[in-house]
Amino acid sequence: MMVSDILNLKESLIVMAGPCSVESESQVLETARALKRLGVNVLRGGAFKPRTYPESFQGLGEDGLKILAMAREETGMSIVTEAMDLESLRLVEKYADIIQIGSRNSQNFPLLKAAGKTMKPVLLKRGFGNTIDELIGSSRYISMSGNNNIMLVERGIRTFENSTRFTLDVSAVPVLHEKVNYPVIIDPSHPAGNSRYVEPLALAGIAAGADGIIVEVHPDPSRALSDAAQQLNLDQFSRLYSKIKEISRVMNKNVI
Amino acid sequence: MMVSDILNLKESLIVMAGPCSVESESQVLETARALKRLGVNVLRGGAFKPRTYPESFQGLGEDGLKILAMAREETGMSIVTEAMDLESLRLVEKYADIIQIGSRNSQNFPLLKAAGKTMKPVLLKRGFGNTIDELIGSSRYISMSGNNNIMLVERGIRTFENSTRFTLDVSAVPVLHEKVNYPVIIDPSHPAGNSRYVEPLALAGIAAGADGIIVEVHPDPSRALSDAAQQLNLDQFSRLYSKIKEISRVMNKNVI
Amino acid sequence: MMVSDILNLKESLIVMAGPCSVESESQVLETARALKRLGVNVLRGGAFKPRTYPESFQGLGEDGLKILAMAREETGMSIVTEAMDLESLRLVEKYADIIQIGSRNSQNFPLLKAAGKTMKPVLLKRGFGNTIDELIGSSRYISMSGNNNIMLVERGIRTFENSTRFTLDVSAVPVLHEKVNYPVIIDPSHPAGNSRYVEPLALAGIAAGADGIIVEVHPDPSRALSDAAQQLNLDQFSRLYSKIKEISRVMNKNVI
Amino acid sequence: MMVSDILNLKESLIVMAGPCSVESESQVLETARALKRLGVNVLRGGAFKPRTYPESFQGLGEDGLKILAMAREETGMSIVTEAMDLESLRLVEKYADIIQIGSRNSQNFPLLKAAGKTMKPVLLKRGFGNTIDELIGSSRYISMSGNNNIMLVERGIRTFENSTRFTLDVSAVPVLHEKVNYPVIIDPSHPAGNSRYVEPLALAGIAAGADGIIVEVHPDPSRALSDAAQQLNLDQFSRLYSKIKEISRVMNKNVI
Repeated sequence: MMVSDILNLKESLIVMAGPCSVESESQVLETARALKRLGVNVLRGGAFKPRTYPESFQGLGEDGLKILAMAREETGMSIVTEAMDLESLRLVEKYADIIQIGSRNSQNFPLLKAAGKTMKPVLLKRGFGNTIDELIGSSRYISMSGNNNIMLVERGIRTFENSTRFTLDVSAVPVLHEKVNYPVIIDPSHPAGNSRYVEPLALAGIAAGADGIIVEVHPDPSRALSDAAQQLNLDQFSRLYSKIKEISRVMNKNVI
Repeated sequence: MMVSDILNLKESLIVMAGPCSVESESQVLETARALKRLGVNVLRGGAFKPRTYPESFQGLGEDGLKILAMAREETGMSIVTEAMDLESLRLVEKYADIIQIGSRNSQNFPLLKAAGKTMKPVLLKRGFGNTIDELIGSSRYISMSGNNNIMLVERGIRTFENSTRFTLDVSAVPVLHEKVNYPVIIDPSHPAGNSRYVEPLALAGIAAGADGIIVEVHPDPSRALSDAAQQLNLDQFSRLYSKIKEISRVMNKNVI
Repeated sequence: MMVSDILNLKESLIVMAGPCSVESESQVLETARALKRLGVNVLRGGAFKPRTYPESFQGLGEDGLKILAMAREETGMSIVTEAMDLESLRLVEKYADIIQIGSRNSQNFPLLKAAGKTMKPVLLKRGFGNTIDELIGSSRYISMSGNNNIMLVERGIRTFENSTRFTLDVSAVPVLHEKVNYPVIIDPSHPAGNSRYVEPLALAGIAAGADGIIVEVHPDPSRALSDAAQQLNLDQFSRLYSKIKEISRVMNKNVI
Repeated sequence: MMVSDILNLKESLIVMAGPCSVESESQVLETARALKRLGVNVLRGGAFKPRTYPESFQGLGEDGLKILAMAREETGMSIVTEAMDLESLRLVEKYADIIQIGSRNSQNFPLLKAAGKTMKPVLLKRGFGNTIDELIGSSRYISMSGNNNIMLVERGIRTFENSTRFTLDVSAVPVLHEKVNYPVIIDPSHPAGNSRYVEPLALAGIAAGADGIIVEVHPDPSRALSDAAQQLNLDQFSRLYSKIKEISRVMNKNVI
C-alpha cells in the first residue's frame, strides 16, 4: 500500500496500530510482524513522548525511529510517529511516512506550520480541551503551505465523567465530515484508558462513519513503559480487527 | 410483543420511536402506523414536557396520554412516556407500558422511588450533568422496592463542545454493562440536536453494544412544537432502521 | 431582622449558616446559639436530604423541621431548609422562613411552581449541570405565580477539574446581576468539598459582588452524617465571618 | 522594582497590565505611561500571538518586542511577553524581563524546558483543558534546570457554561498554594471574554488569595486587533486598580 492510498479514504477504512512507546527492537518487531500478518498496513509507535511529568519515560528518541524504520524495512508497513518540536520533526520527517501531531500540541501553531511544509501526510489529533472548530483552525496551519494530506483524529475530550480517561466525542465524525474534506480517524485507546473499553469505542467510531482507527497494541501491555492499562495485547487486537472488518462492511468501507 | 420481552434483552435490540411531544391524534397515529409497518414495537411520545422556560409548550397532559393509548389500541405497540412528578406518574402509570424518567429528573429521588413502586418497567435517563455512578445510584431508588424492570438511557452529557447539543458518552455502554445488569439504551436525538447527526450517533451506540435505542420521529419535523431541529422524518427513520438492523446483525442482536 | 429585609439586598450581604443535615436537637441548638452570638441571622439545615444512594442518611424529616423551629424560637433566627417534593414542601412551608430548592431539583418544574405559589421566599440553587440561562428559566417557574422573593445560588458546576468537588463559577455573580434583579448568593461549601477551601471561595464570591453566602457549619464536622469533609467548625466559621465583614466593607455591603 | 521582588510575593500583590497585542509604538507607550502613573510596574503585551486561525493577526514579532523595550526604557517598567517556540523564545529572552508561556503551550514540554534554562522568571499559564495537577507537572519541566522563578496563572478552563469565554477556576488559588510554593496569578480577562466581567473576576481572585493579577488594558479597546471585547480602557483599569488596592489591604497584601 502506498501512503497516497491512505489519503483517498472515501471507501476505505485505514487501521493503524502499534505500541504507545517504542521500547525495544524485539517489542516493535514482534508487534509489527503480528499486525502485518493480520493485514494491518500502518504501524504506530512513539519515539518522542510528551509526558505530564518530566520523571516519566520520555521515549527513545532517534533510536526509537530507527527501530520503526527497521520494522518498515522488514514488513513493508508504513510508519506513523509523533513529532513534538521542530527538532524532533526533522527526525520524524526523515524516518516516518506520516507525521503525528499529538493532542497537547494541537494548537502548537509553529509546529503545525512546519509539519505542513514537509508535504508529508500529517495525522493531527484534537486537543482534549479543544472544540471541533479549533481542530479545523489548526488544520489550516498545515494546509496553508499547500499540504492537504491531513488526517484528523478524535481521541476524546475532557469532561466531568471519570469512569473513562477522556470522553470519546463520537459526534466529531459527522460534524467534521460536514465541515472539511479530510479523513476522520478514531483513537479509541486514549479515551478508554482501559483495554476493556477499547473495542466498543473503536466499533462505535467506525459505525459513526470514521475513515480509520489508530489503536495502541503491545505484545505484553502489563510491561509497557507508558499507557499500560489501555493497550491491547495481540489476541485482543486480533478479535477487534475481525469485528472492525464486519462493521466496515456494513458501512461500505474496505479495510486497508 | 410483551413488555417482558423488552426486558430480556441479552440478544435483542429494542427500538423505541415517536415524536418528542404528543401534539395531535393525527400526528401520533400517522407516526405509529408508519413505525409499526416497519416493525417498530414501542412508541414514544411526551404528554408532560419539562421545558426550560414556562412560556414553552408544556405538553397536552392526560389528553396526550389518551392519544397514545389510542395508538396502542390500533397498532398493538407498547407505549413509553414521561412522568414529571407524582401527579403525572399516576396518570402515566395508568396509560403507559413503560414509565420514562427524564434527564432533568434523574436525581429526583422521591419520583424515582414512586416509579419503582408501580412495578412497571422504568426507562431512566442519565442526567446531563450526572456521572455514570450517579445514574446507577438513581437506579437503586427504583430497585429498592423490588422493581428491577429498569432500562438505563445514555442521552448525552454537558461538555464544552458546542457543535452538538450534548456530547453522547458512548463509553457509558460498556461501563454500565460492567457495573449493572440493566439494558443500556442510546438516545441519539438529544445529543445530536440536529437530525443530520442522529443516524451516526444511533449506529455508534449500537456498535458500542447498546441494547436499544430511543429516537425522535415526527411526520413533519419542521412543524414540531418541541425539538424541531433534531426529529427525523419518516423517510429518514426508515433508512436509519435498515442500517440499525445491519449493525445489529454484526453485534449478534435481534431487532425487536 | 425580618425576612423582607433579606430580600432588599442592594447594600446588604446576608449570611446563612448551619449544618448540612439536622442531626439532633443539641447539634442544631449549639450551632444556632454560636452563630447568633456572632451576629448571623439565618440558620440553614437539611431535614430532607437528596442523596445519590438510597443507603445514605436521608434526613430526619418533620422531626428535623421541628428542631429547626425550636432553634428559631430560642434565637430569633430565620430558617432556610430544603424541600424535595410536594409532600416535603407542605411541611417546609409550615416550619421555614425561606424554602430552599436544591441543585438536583433546579429543573424540577412542578416543584418550582408549587414553591412559587407559597409566596414565601425561595432560595433556588443552580443545578450543577445547568447553565446560567437555565437557572434564570427555572426562576421564572417560581415568579410566574407573582412570587419574586427569589434568591439565586451559585454552588459550583461540574467540570473536568477534580481537586475540588465542583468548580465555583464566580462569574455567575456579575452575569446574573446583569440579567435579573434577584440577589445572588454564593455557596462555597459544596464546590470546595473540603473545609480548607471554603474561606477562599466565600471571600471570592463576595468580592465578585455576591449579595450573600450560605455556608455549612457543624459543631463537630468529623462526626457529621453528611458532607463531613466540607463543613466548617465554629472556630473556622468565626474567623471566616470576620473576613466576610472586612471584604463586605470594601464592597459597600452591610453584613446582615 | 527589581524582578526579584516580583517573586518574593508572600506579602505582595503584583499587578501586570497592558494590551493583548503590541500593535504600535503609540498604543504601547500611551498605555505604559498611564499604567506607570497609576503605580503599575509590569507591562504585558504580546508580540507573538497564538491564534486559532492563521488568517488572524499574528503579532508584530521582533518589532513588537522592540516597542516593549522602548516602553521599559522610558517608564522603568518590567516587561512580560509570550514565547511560542524556541525561535521566539530566543528573542523574548533577549528583550523581556519575564517569559510568558501561554495556555495553548502549557504542555509544550520542549518549550517549557528551554524557558527554564534561560533562568529568567517564567509566567506559566494553565492550559484551558488542563487540571491543576497537570499545571504543576508542567512547572517541573521549568524547574528541572534549577529555575524556580515561576509564576502560575489561572486563566479560566473550558466548561459547558457559555455566558463567559472560559470559567475562572478560582479554587485553583488555594489548591496551588497548598501544593507548590510558586506565586499564583489570576488572569481575569480571558475567562471574562467581556470587559464588564473583568473587575468582579479580578477582585474574586485576589480575595481567594492570589499573589497577583495580569489584565488586558488597551487605550481604545474597540480598535484592538485581538481580544477587543475583553480589554479594559484606561479609565476602567484605573477604577479596578483602586479596588484592587482596597481588597489587597484586607488580604494583608501590599500592591507592587
